[in-house]
Order: sequence, then C-alpha cells, then structure tokens
Amino acid sequence: MSLNSYGHLFRVTTWGESHGPALGATVDGCPPGVPVREEDLQVWLDKRRPGQNKHTTQRNEPDAVEILSGVFEGVTTGTPIQLMIRNTDQRSKDYGDIAETFRPGHADITYWQKYGIRDYRGGGRSSARETAARVAAGGVARAALAQLAPGVSVTGYMVQMGSKKIDRSRFDWDEIGCNDFWCPDPGVVDEWADYLDHLRRKEHNSVGAMIEITVRGAPAGLGAPIYGKLDTDLAAAMMSINAVKGVEIGAGMAAAGLTGRDNADEITMGPDGPEYVSNHAGGILGGISTGQDIVLRFAVKPTSSILTPRRSIRKDGSAMDVVTKGRHDPCVGIRAVPVGEAMAAAVVLDHLLLDRGQTGGARGKIGG
Amino acid sequence: MSLNSYGHLFRVTTWGESHGPALGATVDGCPPGVPVREEDLQVWLDKRRPGQNKHTTQRNEPDAVEILSGVFEGVTTGTPIQLMIRNTDQRSKDYGDIAETFRPGHADITYWQKYGIRDYRGGGRSSARETAARVAAGGVARAALAQLAPGVSVTGYMVQMGSKKIDRSRFDWDEIGCNDFWCPDPGVVDEWADYLDHLRRKEHNSVGAMIEITVRGAPAGLGAPIYGKLDTDLAAAMMSINAVKGVEIGAGMAAAGLTGRDNADEITMGPDGPEYVSNHAGGILGGISTGQDIVLRFAVKPTSSILTPRRSIRKDGSAMDVVTKGRHDPCVGIRAVPVGEAMAAAVVLDHLLLDRGQTGGARGKIGG
Amino acid sequence: MSLNSYGHLFRVTTWGESHGPALGATVDGCPPGVPVREEDLQVWLDKRRPGQNKHTTQRNEPDAVEILSGVFEGVTTGTPIQLMIRNTDQRSKDYGDIAETFRPGHADITYWQKYGIRDYRGGGRSSARETAARVAAGGVARAALAQLAPGVSVTGYMVQMGSKKIDRSRFDWDEIGCNDFWCPDPGVVDEWADYLDHLRRKEHNSVGAMIEITVRGAPAGLGAPIYGKLDTDLAAAMMSINAVKGVEIGAGMAAAGLTGRDNADEITMGPDGPEYVSNHAGGILGGISTGQDIVLRFAVKPTSSILTPRRSIRKDGSAMDVVTKGRHDPCVGIRAVPVGEAMAAAVVLDHLLLDRGQTGGARGKIGG
Amino acid sequence: MSLNSYGHLFRVTTWGESHGPALGATVDGCPPGVPVREEDLQVWLDKRRPGQNKHTTQRNEPDAVEILSGVFEGVTTGTPIQLMIRNTDQRSKDYGDIAETFRPGHADITYWQKYGIRDYRGGGRSSARETAARVAAGGVARAALAQLAPGVSVTGYMVQMGSKKIDRSRFDWDEIGCNDFWCPDPGVVDEWADYLDHLRRKEHNSVGAMIEITVRGAPAGLGAPIYGKLDTDLAAAMMSINAVKGVEIGAGMAAAGLTGRDNADEITMGPDGPEYVSNHAGGILGGISTGQDIVLRFAVKPTSSILTPRRSIRKDGSAMDVVTKGRHDPCVGIRAVPVGEAMAAAVVLDHLLLDRGQTGGARGKIGG
Repeated sequence: MSLNSYGHLFRVTTWGESHGPALGATVDGCPPGVPVREEDLQVWLDKRRPGQNKHTTQRNEPDAVEILSGVFEGVTTGTPIQLMIRNTDQRSKDYGDIAETFRPGHADITYWQKYGIRDYRGGGRSSARETAARVAAGGVARAALAQLAPGVSVTGYMVQMGSKKIDRSRFDWDEIGCNDFWCPDPGVVDEWADYLDHLRRKEHNSVGAMIEITVRGAPAGLGAPIYGKLDTDLAAAMMSINAVKGVEIGAGMAAAGLTGRDNADEITMGPDGPEYVSNHAGGILGGISTGQDIVLRFAVKPTSSILTPRRSIRKDGSAMDVVTKGRHDPCVGIRAVPVGEAMAAAVVLDHLLLDRGQTGGARGKIGG
Repeated sequence: MSLNSYGHLFRVTTWGESHGPALGATVDGCPPGVPVREEDLQVWLDKRRPGQNKHTTQRNEPDAVEILSGVFEGVTTGTPIQLMIRNTDQRSKDYGDIAETFRPGHADITYWQKYGIRDYRGGGRSSARETAARVAAGGVARAALAQLAPGVSVTGYMVQMGSKKIDRSRFDWDEIGCNDFWCPDPGVVDEWADYLDHLRRKEHNSVGAMIEITVRGAPAGLGAPIYGKLDTDLAAAMMSINAVKGVEIGAGMAAAGLTGRDNADEITMGPDGPEYVSNHAGGILGGISTGQDIVLRFAVKPTSSILTPRRSIRKDGSAMDVVTKGRHDPCVGIRAVPVGEAMAAAVVLDHLLLDRGQTGGARGKIGG
Repeated sequence: MSLNSYGHLFRVTTWGESHGPALGATVDGCPPGVPVREEDLQVWLDKRRPGQNKHTTQRNEPDAVEILSGVFEGVTTGTPIQLMIRNTDQRSKDYGDIAETFRPGHADITYWQKYGIRDYRGGGRSSARETAARVAAGGVARAALAQLAPGVSVTGYMVQMGSKKIDRSRFDWDEIGCNDFWCPDPGVVDEWADYLDHLRRKEHNSVGAMIEITVRGAPAGLGAPIYGKLDTDLAAAMMSINAVKGVEIGAGMAAAGLTGRDNADEITMGPDGPEYVSNHAGGILGGISTGQDIVLRFAVKPTSSILTPRRSIRKDGSAMDVVTKGRHDPCVGIRAVPVGEAMAAAVVLDHLLLDRGQTGGARGKIGG
Repeated sequence: MSLNSYGHLFRVTTWGESHGPALGATVDGCPPGVPVREEDLQVWLDKRRPGQNKHTTQRNEPDAVEILSGVFEGVTTGTPIQLMIRNTDQRSKDYGDIAETFRPGHADITYWQKYGIRDYRGGGRSSARETAARVAAGGVARAALAQLAPGVSVTGYMVQMGSKKIDRSRFDWDEIGCNDFWCPDPGVVDEWADYLDHLRRKEHNSVGAMIEITVRGAPAGLGAPIYGKLDTDLAAAMMSINAVKGVEIGAGMAAAGLTGRDNADEITMGPDGPEYVSNHAGGILGGISTGQDIVLRFAVKPTSSILTPRRSIRKDGSAMDVVTKGRHDPCVGIRAVPVGEAMAAAVVLDHLLLDRGQTGGARGKIGG
C-alpha cells in the first residue's frame, strides 16, 4: 500500500517536490510491447507546461521527461518504467520568506501539523508541480490504450471559468486545441481572455474552473462492483488532483434534482448493439461502462496564491498578512485539463487490464 | 487487491447479493479492545432498514446482524470481524420476469455484458441491499472512533430532494433524527412528505437527493499526499455507493465559480490553536484535515425502478417496455444517509490508524 | 491492505476463530462462469477434516461448508464468494484452564503481548482450524483452474515424518491417496504408522514433517519480477500456514551446497517446445514458470500440544508446568498436506489471472 | 498493487535494468524526521558493490546513490524518497552475442516466454544488479529503525559456501566484517578463500551459499495473523532476492525431523519479562515476534554464468553451447548478505509501523 500511488494493475507512484532536484513517476504494470518514446510523452507534458501562454505561470521549466527504465529499443518490456523530470528553474528564494508562515488555502499548515517537517519551497510535495509526473504517466497509458483499444480517445476541456460558462450549442471538438483555455466554445474565448486578464492584473485575484473529460470509444464492461467501480476510481483520480473540490459523472450533482422519469436512459437496439436515448448515467451503470461516452466533470478551486493580502498566522502563532508573490497561474484550472486527461487515461487502461484478467472472454451477448 | 474492499488499515470487504442466503462484511484491521456488541451495530442497521416509514420500500427485512468472529467477551480481539445479515424476505418471484430483460438505469445490462452471468433477482450484487453490510461495518468504525478519538462525530442529513432544498438559516442538528428524511430544516419536512407522496402515488415517479455529511471533532493531520488524501478517500467512498453520481468537499462544484479572494479561508490564532474565518475547504487542505468540520455532499440519482413504462430491450435484442413493480423506494437518497455516514466513519477511522502508523508523534506545533 | 488476505487478483480473506460460531473465507476475484458446488468443495475439506483416521485429532467437526454468495444457479457470478463453516464441536471447557497460562510453542504469549486481548479457546485465531477456510477457498481455485487451464494439477504429499524419509525410487503417484499419511512411498507406510503410534501413546510426544507439493501442467510465463515472483508468492503462501518453519523450491536449501555446473538445468528443444535435462530450479526461473513441474517443499514443526510437561509461566509471571490435554494431532504435518495444496492452487490461479491481465497475448515464440 | 514492490506501510518499489541509464527505489511511507544522507546509504551500497575483493565480479560500478526527493535539509519529510543509482560501466557489448540465446539457469527464457520482449543486456530487469536499489532502500529502513527502535540491529553473514560450513562453536560477531565472506567463523576463512579461488580459476565453476540473518533487539508483538505474519513477510522478502531457492526460520527445515518435546521453547520469567530456554521458533510464534533474536536463513544457488559450456537452445530452437563470459561472481551468495540484511530491515521497520497503527498501546502485560 503506497499512499502516493494509484491504479490496480497499471500502478503509478509519483515522487518529488516542487523545488527538489527532480520529480517523476514509477509506472508499473504497463503491458510489454507498447511503443513509448520520450518525444511522445513530451507532447502531453508540453500541454501542461507553464509559460505556454500569458494566462499561465511564467515559471519557465522545460519539463523534459527522461525514460530511465522499462523501455528497450523503443518498446516497453513489461517491467517498471521510470519517468524523471529534472527541476531546472528552482527560484526557491521566492519562497524563503514563507518558511515560517502559512499561506491560506495551501497545505502549508496541514503538512506542518501532520509531519512536523515542512519543505516550504513552493509547497514542496503539495505543489501542483507533482502533476507533471502524472501527465508523463498518462502519456504511457495513452500509448498502451492506442495499442490495446485503438478506438479509445480521452479529451478534456474547460466548460466554466468563474462565472463564465460555455454555450453547449456551440460545442466544437476541433476548437479545443485552438485556444488558450482548451475551451470547446469559440464564442466565449475572447471574453474569457479579457476576464482573466482583468482579474489577474487589475484585481490581483484568481478564479476557479470546471473541467469536463469525455472518454469516447471505451467498450462496455469496464469496471467492477463496489470499490473497484469505474466511477469510484475516476472520482478518486480526479479528487486526488491538487485544488479539485468536486467531481461528478453524467448528470452528476444535478441528479439530485431529477425525477426517475427524466433520468432514465432508455435503451434501444441499434445495428451494433444496445443504444441509449440519453446519457444521464455518464456512460457508467453499476460501476461498469455501458459503451456510451464516459463523461465526468471536476471543479478546480481558484488559485490560492494571490497578490491581494489575506490574513494568516506564523508558526509561532502571531498574526500577519500573506501576499503571495512568485509566479502563479490566475486560473489553475487551465493546466488541470491535461492532468485530468492523464488520470482518466490511466484509469481506463487499468480497467481494461483488470477486465482482461478477471473476466477473460466471458462476455454476455445481446441480440441475435 | 480486492475490488470489493475499501480502506487501507481498516479494511472492509463486503459480500452477498440481494436475494442470496445472506450478505455481510469482513472487517479487518479494527484495533483490539474495542467494545462491539450486535445490538450496538443494530442501531445503525435499523436506521437504514427498509419499511421504517411510508417513504421507503415496504420490503420487510429484519436486517439482524450476527457477529461471527473477531469479538470475544464483548470486545474486539484485533482479528477479522465477520458481520453477517441473513436475507429473510426474498420474494424473488417479483423478479422472475426480468431475467431476460434489462431495466433502464440499472446495472442489469452492464453486469451481463461484463460477466456473461447475471443474478437477476433484485439486481443481485448490484442491489443497494449490499449497503446494509457497509452500515454494519460503519458501526464497528464508530465504536473504534468512540474509543480512539472520543470527540469525533459523523452526521449525515438530506439537504435537497428533487427541486426542494433546505433553508440553511433554519438548520437544526437536533431536528435531523426527528423526521422521515434526516432533514435538518424543520420548515420543509411537511412539504417534502407531500411532494414525495404525490410523486410516488400519483406520478408513479421517483426523485433524486443531495446528502451532506459533517464530521465534527476530527483532529488536524489526517490524510496523506496524492492518492491517500483524505478527500480522495472520502470521494471514492461516497462514489462507491449505489446511485451516487457526484461528490464534493466544502465549496465543492461551486468553487469553479469563485475567485481566490472569496475562496480564501483566512487563518487566525485562537486559544486552542489555529482558527479559520471560513470553511470553503471543507476541512481539508492538500488532502490533510485542518481540524475544522469536514463537510462533504453527494448526489443520489432518482430510483430507476418506477411504475411508469420505460423503453428497453431484451437479451435477444427485441424491444419492450419496462414497468418495474416490486417494492421500491421513491427516493433512495433517504436510506443513503446512514450509508454515507458509515462510509465516512470508516474513512476517518482508517486515517486515524494510518496517521498513527506513519507519523507517530512527529506533529508540528503552532504557537507558543 | 488486509493482513488476513492473500492473492493479487484471486484474493482470499479468511476469518474466524477455533471456537467461535463459525469461520470462513471471503473469496474475491474468481472469474465468472466457473461451476462451484458445496459438495465439490467438501471433498477437499473432508481431506483435511480431523478425526478421519487414528493419526489425527479426534475432535469431530463435520466441517460442512456453505456457499453464502457469489454463486448463482451453480456457477460463479464474478462477485465475492463467501464460504462459511460452522463450528459445532466447541468443547471450549478443555481450554478454560489455560486462560491465564501460555503454552510453549503456541501463539498464546505473542497474541497477548501484541493485542492485550486473548481468545484462549483453542488458540482462537491462531488455531490451525483457520486452515479449513483456506482449503475451502482452494477448492474454488481448483474449480477455476479446471476451467481456465484444464491440464494443471496440484498434488501434495509427505516426504518425511520426523527421522523417517521416503525412498524416492519407490515414488508412486497412485499411492498418495491410499494411506493415512498422503505418502507416495508404499514401502514406509506401515513403519510410519507404528512410529507415530508409539510416539503418541508411549512417548506422549509429537513429530514434525516435510510436505512436498508438485504442480504439473502449469504453462510457462506465470510470475512477475521482484515481488510478484511466482516463487515469492508460493513461499509466502506456505510460510503463512500454521507451524511451517521453512520452504524451498526445487533444489532448495541444498542449492547452497551445489556448484554451478551441477545446478545448471541444461535446455534442449523438444517436439512441443523447450525441454530441460533436470529441474534444480523447481520449475521457476527469475520468478517465472518454465513449464516444467513446479516443485516445492515446506517443513511443519511438531505439534506443540503434548502430554509431556513443559515449563512455562502464567500471565502474572509465576512459573508452572504445561501439560496440554485436549485432542491434538501427533503430527500436524498430515493435515497440512491439503492446506499446502489449497494455497498452491490459489497462487497458481492468481498468476494465471495476473498474466492474462498484464501480458495478454504478447508471448515470445521459441522455435520455428 | 505493484508486482515490483514490497512492504505494507513502508513500501518500496524498485525499478531499472542492469544496463539501462539508471536504477533505483521509490520508498514510500518512511516516517518524517528521520536523518538520511546519501553518505549514510552509501555505506551499505559499498558493502554490496562489485569489485570490492577478488571474490566478486570485477564490474566496476561506483554505485553512487542520489536522493532525488523526500529529504529536505537532511531529514525525511514523510513523502516518497526517490533513490537513484546511475549505471556507468555498461559494457553491454559483452552481451550482444546472447541476444538470440537463452542462458541456462537465467531468466532469459522465461522473460522471453512471458513478455515476448527481452532486454538481453546482462539479464535486464532480472539481473541481480536490481538488488542495489534494495540495499539503498534498506539503508533508509535502518535509519528509521535507528530512530524508532534504537536497540534493533540487523546482521547478515554466510554460514555455508558449497560443501563448507562454519563451526558454530567459533562464532564471533566481530569477525563478520573482517573477511571477504561476511563469515563469523575466523577458522574457515582461509580455506573458503582457497576453495573459491580454485573453483573459479581452475574449475571454471561457481558455488552456492547459505546466508543467516539475525535481528537482535526487536520487541515482542511485531507481526499479524495469517498473511501479514512476520515470518510470511520475511520469507517472501528473502525468496524475492535473485537466486534464492529456500528460506527457513529458527529450526527451519530441520523442524521436520524434531519431536515436540525437543522443539518446545520452554518459557521462564526473567527480570525484564519472559525468557526462553531455547529458540527453535527463531523468535516468531504464530507470526508474531517473541522478543528473542529473530533468526532466518536462505540458500543462494550457485552463479549460473560460468565458463564451463552448458547445453542450451537459441530462439529459433536450434541447439548450441553456452559459455558465459562477462564478469561474474563465483559465489553470488557473498553479495547477497547485504541484500538479505536490507530486506530484513525493511520488513522489521514495516511491522513496527503497522503495529503502531493497528494496536496502538493495547499491549498485554506479563508479570506484576
């Protein structure tokens, strides 16, 4: 049992702190024979990398991933894959003055209370920088999915930033990669840019966001009862990401307001198998995938590090005002998109492997 | 790795189907010396038991729990505790006609697709009846908490049923146990009762609900980084409950709409340690408890089994209309309250044990 | 993580004490569609059951196993299988006088020191009676093996009892089931019977034994590096059995005395694939099966409960002599045979499932 | 579940191949506040390092360990510790000619059969070079033990090499570190040196060995029932080491030949608690430590890589003779001593943490 790991058969353990020499992920359980190259993983790391546009932190890390084990002559061997990312832009002097203070909204105080030890440099282990390792591991998961289940795609995007939401009638998959917000609605992008710019420069403030992840092409039958449920694992995966405060599947929290008649996803028989008239279930029934799109959302709280003073205390209990300088994202939700994708890819791959191990070819047939 | 288990050191594995001879929970890792009697567990089972009032299913199960192991002369021995509940009211003939059909919103179709085997009697393993075993295990967790951390309390209540929400200005802890809905707002109870009665009798419909769980008195320092986070484990615990479609901590999904200035929980120094001006964090920062109330909510979808016909298919692919007779709750959210409490109690106990094992007495001090 | 469980995907958790109401095994991860009936499991339980011949304890337990979950209409459903065995012959008055004393060679003193609680009735949880649950779970594993890998057989037998060893030149597979000792050498059976009879009746003594388990027909490729090695898991499985003090694979402890030249298992190409000139490796290289017979041995210490007085102390520290009455096996090794078989079957099945999940069809070919 | 990990709360995952860029260990669950410096770990790595004397491989690796995470300002923070060892002397051309052949006694053939992929450079993942990572992790375990349980010591030594055994009457703890064999008997060292030299140079042969590990000063009460037994975990730990074919505790395999009267470890009351007249149990009863010395032994097979030709086959099935050049230890048992120590230290620390988490202060008292 590792408290820094996730996954059953595809098992990832991340390590490293914001300002240590390096961070990374130990990836165990990747099947053999999967083509994995550093440059393939780098694509996903670059998507998360800071300093990519004016809306993210200007910390300038190359985030170059090195594969130290588990890959030989370009393909996985079935043994643990070590992915290491060197920290190069460790301006820890930005943090020297917070060694004795606790920043509100950060884990500074709870890490101190728990461990009696604190790596104050940029939050140490609790820094969102840890998610770079998850993105690298997610790249391995994507590579394995590409081989084992070629039709599966995992796509994340922002559907809300602060008070601004997308208009779903304008939803465009192709737009997602074309703007700074991974936003599928081209009609709101300019407005979002102005809004965020104003918040950061004028208001010295930050804002939360809602991310949606859609997994298309996953087969029916992934998941397992009770605690190995696909939705349980997806919820845990998303909630484990820094700053996430809520996660929902399909109709999600809104299901509390629905009636059974409205919520029912009626079933019909299509040419290739069962089809559903709607997808309130988010592609998961009883913890097991239906074959529909798997749809989930998670809420990311606003960046706690802002220039506006907030009241706090020092280790000695004395009062002080915290003004967090340093280089921070005004909306951490933007960079949470590739992180959520990486976690979803890892969970889906994990359940593909589990399903293969546990049920073999025992599948029930529907239709003639 | 068991896919039917939860917890790290306090490890619960549930077993059993809706209409088999019995169901239960194997509880491993309960510390020795905890007083546990069948009648203490029965209190919690009775809270969840069907047929308690007119708003829940009229299936009449005594749900009597038997302790088969792990307790000697009234106290736990440190060895596995087997909790068994006999099924006595197995009217499985209610289900005979669904053996070849798939009820919309149920796991009938996904279990069939995954396993190629289906226990059609009342959903088999996917039935919410499984949660009786969790409630029994939660009773053990509560007993251990009472001994190890006497100030901790875990309380669940409904804050929304369909379109009806509570008015938080009338929130009354003492009201929770006094009505059929575990509702803390005495001002809405009659309205809720009429609403649900109408839905069930006149509309042949059902409705979703939102449950909130508050853990009071938990010490600071529970949790661990990344995947052993307290909020990760709570989210997984709630999402693993049947019919749950979303879970949130503190400000939750609403955090997406907040700014950093509003979301900051400012810190002051109180007589007994740090105090917080607000609790958007829901008592958890960086995955570790702050010592504030731990507050979470989860959404339960409306009961899928309704008398209103819904379109579906048979195993052979032919179309049919499903009208679910049998004895069903019009709002499964009501009985989800003690289940959510049980899961939360298990998670908190688990993290108390983990914390004891991993950090020992290494706690950081704050203040003089 | 459960400390009362074994297996990765085929995961067994046992529960229960010697003199409680019942004991059993929660079996998770058995594939769906495997025919399992109570009478099939009973065969193996009867093999281990006390009172079967004059050389085992005369405690008379029917050891009737009940399947409480996970099997529907005669086949497994893929959900947890609960196997329960009622204790019926609980003559715990035999043990009343040991409540305050510690029997040498038993876990009485260590359980007391660890837990501060002690179920003194027949050793409570530390009683070898717990192994009945493992034998039942092993029956499920055998049933699954019969379906997934029909050629695999798991056979245990005694190769040494005290100072008496078998003569391997007389080894006869068919003899194993025909005598009271699961002994493959017909030439020693009468001598062993006299020896054991004399030890028990005249000497008031007991004796140790060596059990060998051979798994025939297991495919090459089962196992995994480092800690999921097939030999690691087999060693843990055997060492976890009560009274076992050592375990070895292939040449085993004798490998310490061999040279590399003698120990090499040279490889040739046979009509169906690689063949080995010898089997010092015991069918496992680098933690992975070779396709040869998997051969292991484990040593069972002599029964600690004997009529000959042994010095010990009471809880209060005062000295006393222990004379263990009650009904005890003079050689617990005899009944350890079916237990070892059950554990080996569980490990092999577990690795078959793991292999299916982790490597799929990626197997390397040898030969044209 | 990682198949490359060991430990429950103190959880180590190793990664890396013989001839990749690096190998290492991800150590999770080390308590916070433990002083750990690279030079402290290096002491143990140097003990295992090749090329230290003429009896070990002349591969010349500095085996310098780098701490990449989890340690801040010289002490552990409670977060994962990444230990990396760069491979510098990767003469993989030594191995080019074995890419298509299978060396007898090595995992070449089973890795190929399992994964269909093979890192042929020095055995890849199956190389004993992986144990360097375990030794580094063991150094962390020793540091934590030094703080949590200062009286505990873990010492390994060779008691047999091939046909040569020590004379226990000459056993001298202080001698162990003074010779090339970690041998506690000064009277055999010269003979062993000549014997091994002759085997290697003249015979082109290798030889097996028996290692004994003694843990002194461990408290009573470590361990847990059934599968979390201290002896189960020790057996698995040792069997997981490359080339180990057997493991035994206390009297071990010889227990099969003892009677109950001889095997009984009688108990008396000493000034500081219970004392035992003998230690056939090896310090463990019912899976839980007694407070006596914990004594175990494991057998290491002779090095399979020898200059004497052995028959084998190529991937295409054709016959050939293998003569393993390269730089190999004539007795891998020598360098297995620090590996066994490292594993034992990890297991004992793990159980100290587990015990703290699971039983807290519930200990039973003996005596007034």
